[in-house]
Amino acid sequence: MTVVRDAAKAALKAQRIETPSWGYGNSGTRFKVFAQPGVPRTPWEKLDDASKVHEFTGVAPEVSLHIPWDRVDDYAALAAYAKERGLELGAINSNTFQDDDYRLGSVCHPDPKVRRKAVDHLLDCVDIMDATGSKDLKLWFADGTNYPGQDDIAARQDRLAESLAEVYARLGDDQRILLEYKLFEPAFYATDVPDWGTSYAHCLRLGPKARVVVDTGHHAPGTNIEFIVAFLLREGRLGGFDFNSRFYADDDLMVGSADPFQLFRIMHEVAKNGGLRTETNVAFMLDQCHNIEAKIPAVIRSVMNVQEATAKALLVDRDALTAAQAAGDVLAANAVLMDAYNTDVRPLLREVREEQGLNPDPVAAYAASGWQERIAAERVGGEQAGWGA
Amino acid sequence: MTVVRDAAKAALKAQRIETPSWGYGNSGTRFKVFAQPGVPRTPWEKLDDASKVHEFTGVAPEVSLHIPWDRVDDYAALAAYAKERGLELGAINSNTFQDDDYRLGSVCHPDPKVRRKAVDHLLDCVDIMDATGSKDLKLWFADGTNYPGQDDIAARQDRLAESLAEVYARLGDDQRILLEYKLFEPAFYATDVPDWGTSYAHCLRLGPKARVVVDTGHHAPGTNIEFIVAFLLREGRLGGFDFNSRFYADDDLMVGSADPFQLFRIMHEVAKNGGLRTETNVAFMLDQCHNIEAKIPAVIRSVMNVQEATAKALLVDRDALTAAQAAGDVLAANAVLMDAYNTDVRPLLREVREEQGLNPDPVAAYAASGWQERIAAERVGGEQAGWGA
Amino acid sequence: MTVVRDAAKAALKAQRIETPSWGYGNSGTRFKVFAQPGVPRTPWEKLDDASKVHEFTGVAPEVSLHIPWDRVDDYAALAAYAKERGLELGAINSNTFQDDDYRLGSVCHPDPKVRRKAVDHLLDCVDIMDATGSKDLKLWFADGTNYPGQDDIAARQDRLAESLAEVYARLGDDQRILLEYKLFEPAFYATDVPDWGTSYAHCLRLGPKARVVVDTGHHAPGTNIEFIVAFLLREGRLGGFDFNSRFYADDDLMVGSADPFQLFRIMHEVAKNGGLRTETNVAFMLDQCHNIEAKIPAVIRSVMNVQEATAKALLVDRDALTAAQAAGDVLAANAVLMDAYNTDVRPLLREVREEQGLNPDPVAAYAASGWQERIAAERVGGEQAGWGA
Amino acid sequence: MTVVRDAAKAALKAQRIETPSWGYGNSGTRFKVFAQPGVPRTPWEKLDDASKVHEFTGVAPEVSLHIPWDRVDDYAALAAYAKERGLELGAINSNTFQDDDYRLGSVCHPDPKVRRKAVDHLLDCVDIMDATGSKDLKLWFADGTNYPGQDDIAARQDRLAESLAEVYARLGDDQRILLEYKLFEPAFYATDVPDWGTSYAHCLRLGPKARVVVDTGHHAPGTNIEFIVAFLLREGRLGGFDFNSRFYADDDLMVGSADPFQLFRIMHEVAKNGGLRTETNVAFMLDQCHNIEAKIPAVIRSVMNVQEATAKALLVDRDALTAAQAAGDVLAANAVLMDAYNTDVRPLLREVREEQGLNPDPVAAYAASGWQERIAAERVGGEQAGWGA
Repeated sequence: MTVVRDAAKAALKAQRIETPSWGYGNSGTRFKVFAQPGVPRTPWEKLDDASKVHEFTGVAPEVSLHIPWDRVDDYAALAAYAKERGLELGAINSNTFQDDDYRLGSVCHPDPKVRRKAVDHLLDCVDIMDATGSKDLKLWFADGTNYPGQDDIAARQDRLAESLAEVYARLGDDQRILLEYKLFEPAFYATDVPDWGTSYAHCLRLGPKARVVVDTGHHAPGTNIEFIVAFLLREGRLGGFDFNSRFYADDDLMVGSADPFQLFRIMHEVAKNGGLRTETNVAFMLDQCHNIEAKIPAVIRSVMNVQEATAKALLVDRDALTAAQAAGDVLAANAVLMDAYNTDVRPLLREVREEQGLNPDPVAAYAASGWQERIAAERVGGEQAGWGA
Repeated sequence: MTVVRDAAKAALKAQRIETPSWGYGNSGTRFKVFAQPGVPRTPWEKLDDASKVHEFTGVAPEVSLHIPWDRVDDYAALAAYAKERGLELGAINSNTFQDDDYRLGSVCHPDPKVRRKAVDHLLDCVDIMDATGSKDLKLWFADGTNYPGQDDIAARQDRLAESLAEVYARLGDDQRILLEYKLFEPAFYATDVPDWGTSYAHCLRLGPKARVVVDTGHHAPGTNIEFIVAFLLREGRLGGFDFNSRFYADDDLMVGSADPFQLFRIMHEVAKNGGLRTETNVAFMLDQCHNIEAKIPAVIRSVMNVQEATAKALLVDRDALTAAQAAGDVLAANAVLMDAYNTDVRPLLREVREEQGLNPDPVAAYAASGWQERIAAERVGGEQAGWGA
Repeated sequence: MTVVRDAAKAALKAQRIETPSWGYGNSGTRFKVFAQPGVPRTPWEKLDDASKVHEFTGVAPEVSLHIPWDRVDDYAALAAYAKERGLELGAINSNTFQDDDYRLGSVCHPDPKVRRKAVDHLLDCVDIMDATGSKDLKLWFADGTNYPGQDDIAARQDRLAESLAEVYARLGDDQRILLEYKLFEPAFYATDVPDWGTSYAHCLRLGPKARVVVDTGHHAPGTNIEFIVAFLLREGRLGGFDFNSRFYADDDLMVGSADPFQLFRIMHEVAKNGGLRTETNVAFMLDQCHNIEAKIPAVIRSVMNVQEATAKALLVDRDALTAAQAAGDVLAANAVLMDAYNTDVRPLLREVREEQGLNPDPVAAYAASGWQERIAAERVGGEQAGWGA
Repeated sequence: MTVVRDAAKAALKAQRIETPSWGYGNSGTRFKVFAQPGVPRTPWEKLDDASKVHEFTGVAPEVSLHIPWDRVDDYAALAAYAKERGLELGAINSNTFQDDDYRLGSVCHPDPKVRRKAVDHLLDCVDIMDATGSKDLKLWFADGTNYPGQDDIAARQDRLAESLAEVYARLGDDQRILLEYKLFEPAFYATDVPDWGTSYAHCLRLGPKARVVVDTGHHAPGTNIEFIVAFLLREGRLGGFDFNSRFYADDDLMVGSADPFQLFRIMHEVAKNGGLRTETNVAFMLDQCHNIEAKIPAVIRSVMNVQEATAKALLVDRDALTAAQAAGDVLAANAVLMDAYNTDVRPLLREVREEQGLNPDPVAAYAASGWQERIAAERVGGEQAGWGA
């Protein structure tokens, strides 16, 4: 077991979890956004907060941006600012859902003028990637319809395919499109990319630089997400994750908080099918809303939850598992998996952190750092960042 | 069949469908609220719009208010304004979810000061009912928790029970509490009144003036809503409906647009179990969000959808149904029900409208009235009403 | 409208709905199979019953077989027997789930001997197709796992792909594989072909003779089935339907009985996207269990339900729909669709039947035919056919 | 923490988990029942197997019976046989779903003769309880309808209430009715006791000896089961559990295998709300189907899973939890709960077992006992017990 344990520690030290700039800002439900003291007012302040998460966890050096929420005049300066804080700018997330023109969709809109505007925004995002050095354009489309008959389902697919092709053609050699799918919300009848199959089919047509991104909160009840993960890895089309958790719909709770066993099963498929290897190029991103809990500590906790699930996945006794599976011993095979899951990996992770020169308890370390008090005192005036801000 | 048809027409003429003041204002998802031209800026303008719905349908004389969204200085004046337009003020809907104090709940909040504030708001609502003549206090609580352990589930029930008891004690003789339940949103782990059973149990403890209200979008997938309706009618505890429709979660689409057969089945249970009789005192209310479609026409369409479902329910051949059921003839019994459902009742409803002196086509009549153009031109400046406004 | 109506009538006369041999036999839940008098004891008797459905509806000339449930010594004789009754033998359904060897799967089983046995069965089925003239091999695999870790998800996909490739290679020029997917049951953790995306991906790799079949009861709650239908038609990969309906899981109720509006929306996408054209080669099959209702009348009713949904879909005013969609008029576009749905098409279908020389009321005609009484009297002794028999 | 640990150990030693006689027999899905070697052929052999589970776990002395599956001539002899093996006979489970008369229901059937037969069976079950000393009559009704209109929902409630009242009147002073609810299956449109609210309402009317039993697999997707548990404990109406687990529907997998975190949350509410106290009288029963895995080891594993969830629940630092909840510290409160959940309690349970004179590893101990080989060799001939046998 020492060998497994050492390999696990090495992998845990190499892990990279990307945090989203918008996770540091205010968010809420359609009913209410509860503001919190100290919330960033600018992209620069979001990076300041992200740097704290990385400082205390050691595995969160990348930050996803959201355009236009993180629009700045000088993206190279933003990237340099990140670099000074030990960070890199990660995926660029497009936003084609918060302009009045997008009431009936963006790249699938019946009106070609609106589609043009949307595609131009996506092309702008690639320009920004050039400036920031970001490699991934993450596309989530709020497109869809609320009522049967409202628009033509197949025609919308044609428009989607055409729009994606134009953006794909603009990608640089080392840039990718990560195409997200989502069952519903904000569209309530038919969403234009509702499931992994739709995203996968479009990626296939686009080419090798297009991959599927799995948001763990975007599935119908009962969907086996780890199956999708295993399938996409087998096909070489898993681009990354938007991690969060849910009890009901796209709740966007902290990853691992609703069903930690599911997160473990997902990480088990990732680990077993080569998804942790650098060359597989899977992006492990968070995409969450901290509506009622303190934001920076919630991101830290989320990063730790991914680490814990990963650690457990790395501790699975693969040889024993394979042997039990080959023997058709249902209970033994299940027991091998559960043995890893039931292990308390927190001591192991404390060790990992200490060996990296970190405080073994990131939550306590952050609390003791005074950062929260400082931002609450200093970030007064101006408009807090948030969804839509 | 003439007898049945005549009885159906009489019942359809007597039907009352209550429209919500907030349905005339802007609404949206957490991602975006799309503003529409001509949207009311005040409760008075909402009543103006509601009066149009009643003018063209003839069955929508009541308007639900939402406090504080419809706060005015003089409620008696508002009631008089309604009366001049042929309207009455209906249920008063409380709102204990849009104040920063309510981040962790209202009547279930761990802090007694917040609970006090919430209960005081509910008592204010009863004061308003006294002024407007409204008979129903409709209570929907956004209370709940997002994370396991966040608060004590049972303790929150104690607080809920205590708060409700205080409000119940304040009710006048002919006033009622209608207690709404909802599976989730905005709470994403445990909602404090998540299902009809919880609402029912609290109503039982409160007394005869407390009743359950069924929002057709507030259930878990697969829930048989008409069963709940039949059960509550049998128990004398069905207070009313918040009608809307859904494909996924609480989508708040136009009632009857997602599953018209379900709406028919619900109205069949209502009709069969005495729910259309005045003395049963069931309130038929809409609670919808017209995020992307024109609002007044959407309300008109919704009212018509309820009428059509009701008409079909009234055409069910009850004797044939009962006979087939008693005989255990599954296909025959189902066929009796389907025969009514498959009937095109639009000619019947056109007749009903003509006999009431109305245009047989309310949608066309509204479109021809010029009202939409007029409000778009006149309601300029000021702040449009909307969720939270 | 006369033009539309005439075209609809022509299309309705040309429609072909395939009924399943097993729908005439006994079926049930895991709790109980309730036997019914007169149920067939042999494949020949099943064809006798199917011929009654065709006799009274005029649109059900094809019968799906299930091997080994419909194993006979001489398939050519069976085909001739069918032909004498105006029938053809349709899709051959394989069964790799009712042998003790298949406890842990069939084509995905960890043991190559079991996979060999399963593939041999599939090859046998192609032999039978050669004898019967059937064009479609319908594959539904019960394969999957009940517990996390029980087997390797990705390895099972490898085995599946290999098995399918061998069968595909055996197909004749005009034969197809129709690959079915199902979310769950009988596997309760991970099903090996759980969704359309998985089926589609395998079909792509197999080649042009492999297509996806959509069983309307095999999806997660909330899945928009008509989206899948439109998508697959656009990709040229919709092989056919297994029609039935459901409120909860794979309930296998009569098609159109649970959500007739959904069935209409599906048929609308079929009609609009060329799915009714002969050259598109979409098989419209029933796959139902008549657990408590009389079987032959239930099949007749199901055929009629598909006809009614098709008729409504054919009555959609496509020009008006397209115009409203292009104008972004949400309510108008929805209204066009609903106008067709709300039409009572039963008179039209009575006309269609009369013009085909049929009794306009197939249910009554069957009841009056004396067939039910005859088979109840004659089919005594022997073992009734059923699932597994 | 030593105090908490010691209290936990005491509670774990006092815990009683009831195993079901039918869990030792064959079971399956509607598609196939896979027989296993050594499966019991008689109720006596089932008790032999149950005694093994108790021998190796020390906490499973009670066995639920199912009538008529466990019908014997002399129930006192069966009880004595159990006693000799250190067992007691637990709840009596009625079965009113496997007789041809019950095609359209039992206690809710439209025909009074069928209802009479069903009620007589329930009264027989109370007679059996008198003979065995069982205290609980567990009632699960498969009653319901498959098609809208098939029967009258409200009338069925009347029949249900009347039937229950007659059985309730027959109960002895220390006997109880435990009324189970289930969303669906085998009824696919409307189940007559579909949710806890319906069961609760009937129990209220019956009287204090009627309580709700929660089967963890009987809910709609997304239902928060621990909420129901907390609510029923608060009302004094939680009679017990039928433990199992599910990913989709009523999958009846081993408890704790699909969502161990949910099981922990349930046991946390049980522990916190007094549910582990003897006087609360909550029955902790298993109700599972071991379709593909070895049966006795699966029951042992299930018992251990309940123990582990209970141990974690007992380790929750209640003072810290209450303090964090009162402070409104969402993350801290959640962290307290997660700290207990993330603890590896297997060492603690090994200690508990050793202190009770048991092998710390029940699975290994059973495997080493030779029992499985013995029953496989000895139980040859005769008919294996199973669902329906």
